[in-house]
Amino acid sequence: MNAAPNFDDTYVEPIFDVAQLASVELFSPKVDETLWFFTELLGMSVTHREGDSAYLRAYEDYYHHSLKVTYREQPGIGTTSWRTSSPQALRRRTTVLDSVGIDVAWRDGDLGQGPSADFTSPSGHTHSLLWDVEYYEAPEGERSQLLSRPQKRPLKGVPVRRLDHVNHLVDDVTQNRRFLQDTLGFRLRENIVVNSREAAAWMSVSPLVHEIANLSDPTGRSADGNGGLHHLAFWYGFPQHLLDAADMFTDHGLKIDLGPGKHGATQAQFLYVFEPGGNRIELFGDTGYLIFDPAWKARTWTEENLDKSLIWYGSPLAREFSIFGQRAAT
Amino acid sequence: MNAAPNFDDTYVEPIFDVAQLASVELFSPKVDETLWFFTELLGMSVTHREGDSAYLRAYEDYYHHSLKVTYREQPGIGTTSWRTSSPQALRRRTTVLDSVGIDVAWRDGDLGQGPSADFTSPSGHTHSLLWDVEYYEAPEGERSQLLSRPQKRPLKGVPVRRLDHVNHLVDDVTQNRRFLQDTLGFRLRENIVVNSREAAAWMSVSPLVHEIANLSDPTGRSADGNGGLHHLAFWYGFPQHLLDAADMFTDHGLKIDLGPGKHGATQAQFLYVFEPGGNRIELFGDTGYLIFDPAWKARTWTEENLDKSLIWYGSPLAREFSIFGQRAAT
Amino acid sequence: MNAAPNFDDTYVEPIFDVAQLASVELFSPKVDETLWFFTELLGMSVTHREGDSAYLRAYEDYYHHSLKVTYREQPGIGTTSWRTSSPQALRRRTTVLDSVGIDVAWRDGDLGQGPSADFTSPSGHTHSLLWDVEYYEAPEGERSQLLSRPQKRPLKGVPVRRLDHVNHLVDDVTQNRRFLQDTLGFRLRENIVVNSREAAAWMSVSPLVHEIANLSDPTGRSADGNGGLHHLAFWYGFPQHLLDAADMFTDHGLKIDLGPGKHGATQAQFLYVFEPGGNRIELFGDTGYLIFDPAWKARTWTEENLDKSLIWYGSPLAREFSIFGQRAAT
Amino acid sequence: MNAAPNFDDTYVEPIFDVAQLASVELFSPKVDETLWFFTELLGMSVTHREGDSAYLRAYEDYYHHSLKVTYREQPGIGTTSWRTSSPQALRRRTTVLDSVGIDVAWRDGDLGQGPSADFTSPSGHTHSLLWDVEYYEAPEGERSQLLSRPQKRPLKGVPVRRLDHVNHLVDDVTQNRRFLQDTLGFRLRENIVVNSREAAAWMSVSPLVHEIANLSDPTGRSADGNGGLHHLAFWYGFPQHLLDAADMFTDHGLKIDLGPGKHGATQAQFLYVFEPGGNRIELFGDTGYLIFDPAWKARTWTEENLDKSLIWYGSPLAREFSIFGQRAAT
Repeated sequence: MNAAPNFDDTYVEPIFDVAQLASVELFSPKVDETLWFFTELLGMSVTHREGDSAYLRAYEDYYHHSLKVTYREQPGIGTTSWRTSSPQALRRRTTVLDSVGIDVAWRDGDLGQGPSADFTSPSGHTHSLLWDVEYYEAPEGERSQLLSRPQKRPLKGVPVRRLDHVNHLVDDVTQNRRFLQDTLGFRLRENIVVNSREAAAWMSVSPLVHEIANLSDPTGRSADGNGGLHHLAFWYGFPQHLLDAADMFTDHGLKIDLGPGKHGATQAQFLYVFEPGGNRIELFGDTGYLIFDPAWKARTWTEENLDKSLIWYGSPLAREFSIFGQRAAT
Repeated sequence: MNAAPNFDDTYVEPIFDVAQLASVELFSPKVDETLWFFTELLGMSVTHREGDSAYLRAYEDYYHHSLKVTYREQPGIGTTSWRTSSPQALRRRTTVLDSVGIDVAWRDGDLGQGPSADFTSPSGHTHSLLWDVEYYEAPEGERSQLLSRPQKRPLKGVPVRRLDHVNHLVDDVTQNRRFLQDTLGFRLRENIVVNSREAAAWMSVSPLVHEIANLSDPTGRSADGNGGLHHLAFWYGFPQHLLDAADMFTDHGLKIDLGPGKHGATQAQFLYVFEPGGNRIELFGDTGYLIFDPAWKARTWTEENLDKSLIWYGSPLAREFSIFGQRAAT
Repeated sequence: MNAAPNFDDTYVEPIFDVAQLASVELFSPKVDETLWFFTELLGMSVTHREGDSAYLRAYEDYYHHSLKVTYREQPGIGTTSWRTSSPQALRRRTTVLDSVGIDVAWRDGDLGQGPSADFTSPSGHTHSLLWDVEYYEAPEGERSQLLSRPQKRPLKGVPVRRLDHVNHLVDDVTQNRRFLQDTLGFRLRENIVVNSREAAAWMSVSPLVHEIANLSDPTGRSADGNGGLHHLAFWYGFPQHLLDAADMFTDHGLKIDLGPGKHGATQAQFLYVFEPGGNRIELFGDTGYLIFDPAWKARTWTEENLDKSLIWYGSPLAREFSIFGQRAAT
Repeated sequence: MNAAPNFDDTYVEPIFDVAQLASVELFSPKVDETLWFFTELLGMSVTHREGDSAYLRAYEDYYHHSLKVTYREQPGIGTTSWRTSSPQALRRRTTVLDSVGIDVAWRDGDLGQGPSADFTSPSGHTHSLLWDVEYYEAPEGERSQLLSRPQKRPLKGVPVRRLDHVNHLVDDVTQNRRFLQDTLGFRLRENIVVNSREAAAWMSVSPLVHEIANLSDPTGRSADGNGGLHHLAFWYGFPQHLLDAADMFTDHGLKIDLGPGKHGATQAQFLYVFEPGGNRIELFGDTGYLIFDPAWKARTWTEENLDKSLIWYGSPLAREFSIFGQRAAT
């Protein structure tokens, strides 16, 4: 090896300790209707039901569950769970959280998940970090010959393939976004700044444009127990399935909130619908674009191109879908 | 923080030092026809032409180029270039390469790329590691309002969006695959083992199923100067574009080698075509599936399900598209 | 009105007396498995079951049924039923059939269909002409708000939208094709002539490229009681649904015969599969092209471009899918 | 033949004398920009340019032209030309027109078209009936091996396949619709009746849901020389192409008027855009549904389900896209 050139040794390297969004808990005042939505329309399976909760997964989700539905009087979001890249990565992140004064509580872990480190983000959302997971094993007749598919393609509804991302309503986007960057290693991919105030931020730990987004919610609802959810998203990968899902939703009496269309921010082909329990669910029709550039500079949309950031083409934005976060009446 | 549970501190953590496939060089005996193929049919742009080489990029490739076409009497592959996650990561990888006896040569870097560490893999392929890249800046009229898109969607052909992966023909899949895993941190995602011999391996450093595949080539062609290419792949993301491209290729007299169809291994919607210079080009119609599981266990296909690994649905495999690597007559 | 120019008053005007393919009867040795295929995988509904027969329709079929499945020891095709443009048209066609020596038998009509005029074509196939039909009325909860859709989009499998066409195996394509043209008014849209012998003919009474095709079958099987079927086709309209169906078929253990791909003749996006009873079923992924030209000249494919007529892109033709009509082993 | 049953001999049989929409003339104040739109973005070809007019066709249009663009100070529509089913059919229709007091003027015919019978509908629109057409012959290098395709798939923009339909703004929908039914044999497929007034009517002579629609225009603009156009539609057949076109239009600075989305009436996947000359152009992404029922009963939408008739899913209707016909500001 000849002499290496001089490189900047002070470059701040990215952190790869959080690997993926593992599962999200939704609250529903109508659990049975909510389960009907996820199983009959979106083709998901209930892997377990116990007490007030049901555990579900999509047919290309690899673990015990990616969605937990729990009875509450109001819709909303419970715990957002992240899997780390290794046991050491889990320990490192909890050390960092502790060092910045975040109270971390180790728990035994939920069904199908190993010990978890739970904490509350500045926005008031409950997060969980975990390493161990239980892999889903399909019963004999449900096993797919497609080795990367843990279960045959379901014959119900327009089946979603996997959990994609979560969008939290927060009081202070910038504060919460920085927290996620500094303590967990999220990278900022795109954001919206209007009147010098950050209204939305899309962040990820992978080439996905986001596993989590934060949306400004000046109503303060994000602080209460079951509030704080803008939407939870599941992935199709194929745009036609958004059209099929939209057709199915309209035909079967569900309220489409927005779409199908394409966002400028994230380049996502989107469709938003309210499940019967009152939570807004996004279906994601492609991968948007994937970010492999390790030095990606966040794209910032402002008042000048806000409309294009929200709608590249498709439905004009409904009033209630404000980026400033008012909760849609359900 | 209450007491953390015991985790396995000896767990071997993944390496994140290689970030992405940055560019690939193709050799062509008919540079003008090869450029016609990439520009008029696939909508790519020539960013520079100098000497025997032309530099090209697709409209969602962010850097100066993702493809370099160089004149040679025979088609084939030149250097495969990888961008690291940081300058430190580049240094770390070259140290490892050096430590296992690989000869690493620092060079000034190609057009649009910073200093690179070049080396030859056991399979005889030239690889390059680099950190610095020049970002593409579109001329005024070509800039897109879509902030994550470095250039307007082209109005030519069925435009591909970005470079996706490369497939090298190698003498010994297992040896070369282990080299890529051990020195560069690639993860094995899927492979084919027939008669206890590894015939194919798909590897990645990102959630993509592969940025590089190795295919067994018992003819030994992979050892010579410009051999060793099974195919180079560009990404569409949308299955309809494979159908459009197939229609375009047939109508404009190109030879479709295989597809459109869906592989079992990688779950890719694929289409293979020979560009006029004689190189096999794959168009990738979706993202296949994405791997976020940090402890992913490689899926191994064997003689029992080999046919499904190659063709989940679509074209039966042509004789010349042997997984044992005979080069198709062009 | 000034003086009209001279036009050719001897021009042979097209006949518009046959309006559409109304229903087809299939024979199955495994009725329950056949019904599983059509209901669970293709989302069709059984509207009636009586004796050895079941009546089915797709969700955008307007009448009582478009498919009748009847138990027989061997798979094959029963009656092919055509609806005329008017009661007078029905009478006119039977008069013509009678005048050329075809034995026409008036019957009371099948379930959901008015009186029918039944006859046998030179190829030995049973046809039925009818005018009156019973429209399907969905039960309350199944009615769609989409006024042109007689039933909500089903939540099962990858649901087909309507019956499309039938392909009969015949001994003598030219003889049978001329019969259909001369007596019923079918227009020849495309055909294949190999070695001066007509091997295939696509015919229609509407802008569809075909409601019926005739394929040469030198084995003579078309003459026997339940033979004579190459395939029966149902319509999706959207190419993605062929990909979805292909995925579903492979995952659920059905044998894909050919496709997905695109024929040159008819421009159809196709997928062929064998239902469990042994009949080849085609799924049609788009409309091919539509013929509005009233003076359309049939396109003739020959040995020179036969390959392109069969496969414009996609799967190479399997040996057993011979255009010369050998029945595939099931 | 045994005795035929009694059928109703007084049934009013459908008329099949008009076969298809042959061509439409658009006025444009900016002919060059209008041609740029149709050629560079929609992939159409100019077959002739003469004086103030240019003649264009899409790549699956069979005749000399399907679109004529003529310079005028204001955008709008010129002659709408229909091809009959035969020379006799042309004579029959002109006789009927004459018999109801419509002034029919025989002319020599436009470029590529034989003698035409021109007349004005009650809505003030100029129509032309013709029989003879000149078929397009592609130059050697442009001929497709796909026999039903008169020209290779273009390599420009997102190429449309053929002319689909025209939508006229009219003062009195019911009066004009009845005229088209009674004199030309159009069948009413769907309509909208609000407050007992017919606001829209979709009519066809083929299984297409419409070759012509009439939309109520209370502003009276339809009466003037170059007014009266709501939109002219070209056909893609594939939904992805609407998404591609929408992306292309946004990226290249055109104003999307509405969509992509799906109408309830016609079931069309639609996208509306203004070409630079100021005319609203619709791109049609599928075939909607096809009507083969010869006794089809028109589906009538009312105030109760008006919203679903306009938007089954997708963009909420823009204010300026009123079904009551105000012309969008251009």
